[in-house]
Amino acid sequence: MNNHAFTDLMAFERETQAIAAVAERLGWDQETMMPRGAAEQRGEEMGAMEGILHARRTDPRIAEWLGAAVAPDAAGEAQLRLIARSHARAVKIPGALAQELARVTSVAQGVWAEARAKEDVAAFLPTLEKVVGLRRQEAACLAEGGDLYDALMDDYEPGATAATIGAMFDRMRPRLVALREKVIGKAAPRVSGHFPAEGQLALAREVAEAYGYDFTRGRIDLAVHPFSSGSGDDSRITTRVVESDPFNCLYSTIHEVGHSSYELNIDRGLKMTPAGRGVSMGVHESQSRIYENQIGRGAMALWLYGRMEARFGALGVSSAQEFLRAVNRVQAGFIRTEADEVHYNLHIMMRFDLERALIRGDLAVGDLEEAWNARFAADFGVKVDKPSNGVLQDVHWSVGLFGYFPTYTLGNVYAGCLWQALRRDLPGVEEALAKGDTSGAVGWLKERLQRHGGLRTPSETIAHACGFAPSEGPLLDYLEAKFSGLYGL
Amino acid sequence: MNNHAFTDLMAFERETQAIAAVAERLGWDQETMMPRGAAEQRGEEMGAMEGILHARRTDPRIAEWLGAAVAPDAAGEAQLRLIARSHARAVKIPGALAQELARVTSVAQGVWAEARAKEDVAAFLPTLEKVVGLRRQEAACLAEGGDLYDALMDDYEPGATAATIGAMFDRMRPRLVALREKVIGKAAPRVSGHFPAEGQLALAREVAEAYGYDFTRGRIDLAVHPFSSGSGDDSRITTRVVESDPFNCLYSTIHEVGHSSYELNIDRGLKMTPAGRGVSMGVHESQSRIYENQIGRGAMALWLYGRMEARFGALGVSSAQEFLRAVNRVQAGFIRTEADEVHYNLHIMMRFDLERALIRGDLAVGDLEEAWNARFAADFGVKVDKPSNGVLQDVHWSVGLFGYFPTYTLGNVYAGCLWQALRRDLPGVEEALAKGDTSGAVGWLKERLQRHGGLRTPSETIAHACGFAPSEGPLLDYLEAKFSGLYGL
Repeated sequence: MNNHAFTDLMAFERETQAIAAVAERLGWDQETMMPRGAAEQRGEEMGAMEGILHARRTDPRIAEWLGAAVAPDAAGEAQLRLIARSHARAVKIPGALAQELARVTSVAQGVWAEARAKEDVAAFLPTLEKVVGLRRQEAACLAEGGDLYDALMDDYEPGATAATIGAMFDRMRPRLVALREKVIGKAAPRVSGHFPAEGQLALAREVAEAYGYDFTRGRIDLAVHPFSSGSGDDSRITTRVVESDPFNCLYSTIHEVGHSSYELNIDRGLKMTPAGRGVSMGVHESQSRIYENQIGRGAMALWLYGRMEARFGALGVSSAQEFLRAVNRVQAGFIRTEADEVHYNLHIMMRFDLERALIRGDLAVGDLEEAWNARFAADFGVKVDKPSNGVLQDVHWSVGLFGYFPTYTLGNVYAGCLWQALRRDLPGVEEALAKGDTSGAVGWLKERLQRHGGLRTPSETIAHACGFAPSEGPLLDYLEAKFSGLYGL
Repeated sequence: MNNHAFTDLMAFERETQAIAAVAERLGWDQETMMPRGAAEQRGEEMGAMEGILHARRTDPRIAEWLGAAVAPDAAGEAQLRLIARSHARAVKIPGALAQELARVTSVAQGVWAEARAKEDVAAFLPTLEKVVGLRRQEAACLAEGGDLYDALMDDYEPGATAATIGAMFDRMRPRLVALREKVIGKAAPRVSGHFPAEGQLALAREVAEAYGYDFTRGRIDLAVHPFSSGSGDDSRITTRVVESDPFNCLYSTIHEVGHSSYELNIDRGLKMTPAGRGVSMGVHESQSRIYENQIGRGAMALWLYGRMEARFGALGVSSAQEFLRAVNRVQAGFIRTEADEVHYNLHIMMRFDLERALIRGDLAVGDLEEAWNARFAADFGVKVDKPSNGVLQDVHWSVGLFGYFPTYTLGNVYAGCLWQALRRDLPGVEEALAKGDTSGAVGWLKERLQRHGGLRTPSETIAHACGFAPSEGPLLDYLEAKFSGLYGL
């Protein structure tokens, strides 16, 4: 049987994927290459691209094709499910609103970057007010009377709700706080030395290669906020360099290599189709976090120690084990992206509560800084000293990413599950990682999870890879065991 | 009176300009940043963008709007004229052909680059065959029975025909050849020294700034074939570095600064409108060439001498006048982009004849290399030693730019006219340039020509700037005077 509807729909979607890839590349350019004076024009360009994408995602032919299409196989069924989902969301949002959101968030990012550089929250608030207002409008279109925040979160993590996430956070918090209280007073070594930018970037490239990152289909550049971008045969990462802290560049790079490798490792047959992308932000984050933490701050750190010594000379620690403790140093800090594994999820829980309140209308944008600072003092026991260490630290809200933060902790939870399953299946994996050999671990992740892209739902994707349903237990067990071992608790 | 048709049309065109700017940025990325393994996917992305642009340029509403629109002023009339012209061309080309051309040329560029690196003409020919075939198809759609080559050339230089260009070339050739014969045996100094890549790039940035290039709206990167890209508030240039020849980077940079400055200097009110671009390739080239030659290889070279000495130490020439002679050294060479002002147009005349024969069907792609080598030996008295010095040297044909080459010589002709007029109006300009002060010359070009964008036709643009109709006389007079002076003929 010749199913023209399915074929036509897939051809149409493929072209949409190509255009979306162009828009994504434009976003990469904006963060890495674009001259500053082009910001306003770029907003107009992004708005035009968003207009095209919105028109395609709401094209009435999609509903017709979906009505007539018969999938030839299970993969085809997954494609149809993803297309139907995306179409149903898109038709709820007026084109003018989608375009205005693209335009405003494109400019907002520059405003945020400048406000952050100048420590000037007030300069950012009118813009943030606009972004929040537009996203609330969008949420209202999507929610159809339901919860506004859930409607936004569903875009990043299909199936997740604030209620289940909130309940999980409530189960996690006591164990994390207890662990933090046990560890926080303990002495841990620091590395010292001279870490020139050039050497850090060379190390970043070496380590990316050790993790199997494919430089013929990717590249590394500098950006204010590290990110990965693109899919198929072109997925790029960015990093940043702080000369006094070599771990910033190193672990940002490993993190983004995890994201990018997920995209690059998806089966070629799925390339440029709806199922040819990482399935959700939470599952994406599980890959970046397992590369970064369970692997990179675990046995792999013993190998990294040697590579860093070879490049920078003595590091001021007496052994690889000392280096491992330095890499896993626990301390209350301002910056989420620099947080240790014990504190990280506490950062997320705080942002989750604040942004949910913003979107639900329970917190005014004008009160956000005060709310942030009060909550931070309560949760971390430290007073925020400047906006770039507080409410202005993350790019997310400027680009309208409300509902995105909880996927970071979900990613950690998923990474915990994957790590448990991976060690179950590969008993010798840590000895290999300690020698810099990632092939077993990365191969397992590619085969069990990465290559399948969006063929299953997010939680099914994790369950399929692990052989058990995801929950927060494995992550908390891992954290307690790891830090008990490191600190001799 | 509220002219809705005009307003709606201009809003539609503005969005088209924004999308075209995105496609152009994608082309820049391909040449500067794209990982090699992404080439095939990029072809698909470019094809999708071309599909959108073609759909917009052939949108039936344009004809309706054009029928109803009343321009509010002379600038509006120019906009309508440009839109009508572009629409009339676009509707003649089937969408599938436009998309196929974009896809094939995107991939062809990579094939050309690889063939060139490997000195393997045969590896490039099947691709070139495809490109020529598609462009001939396109030309047939446009020409409607007329000359195929004229139909293609008209896209780069509205109003130009092979007959008038050919006649002008015939008038120019004897004087150029006579000048060449007089100069070719004369001794001229060369610079010598150590010119590390980093220093060359730093000099390139310094010189770009001296010419007033606006780095807040542009940037410089490396590419195999230097080019400029983009308009409005984002116009970027590329350059290349040959460590043994500092003039390659220096004058490529100045050349592209001329192109890019033209775009950046167009009146802000015309930004992102059809008249907000350089009016034609010939006029564009007049800006790059007057920056490069009349200015950069003229009095400005006396200042450049000091800057180069400051950066690289002794240059092996005894004075600024000697340096000027080195910069204007005349010798038969293989590479067009490195050719001196006496030989340059002879390169173009050869390409003009060869590509016209290809498009008219008088020369088979399989015979191109032989035809190139025979003609080169005849015109330059030297045998081509390898394809990268011969038929594979230029990117143009791989990306389908047939009919483009003659605009290079047209640009030189226009630059000759502009230089005559500029010196007439600014008697002290050369003393200022000798001190590195370009403000008079660049200011004159901006005011008289650049800022007007596409408000007038190409030849009217030159006539308006100069106060007289363009012809080849001023260029030939300038060349004869300049080289007679330099060589004491």
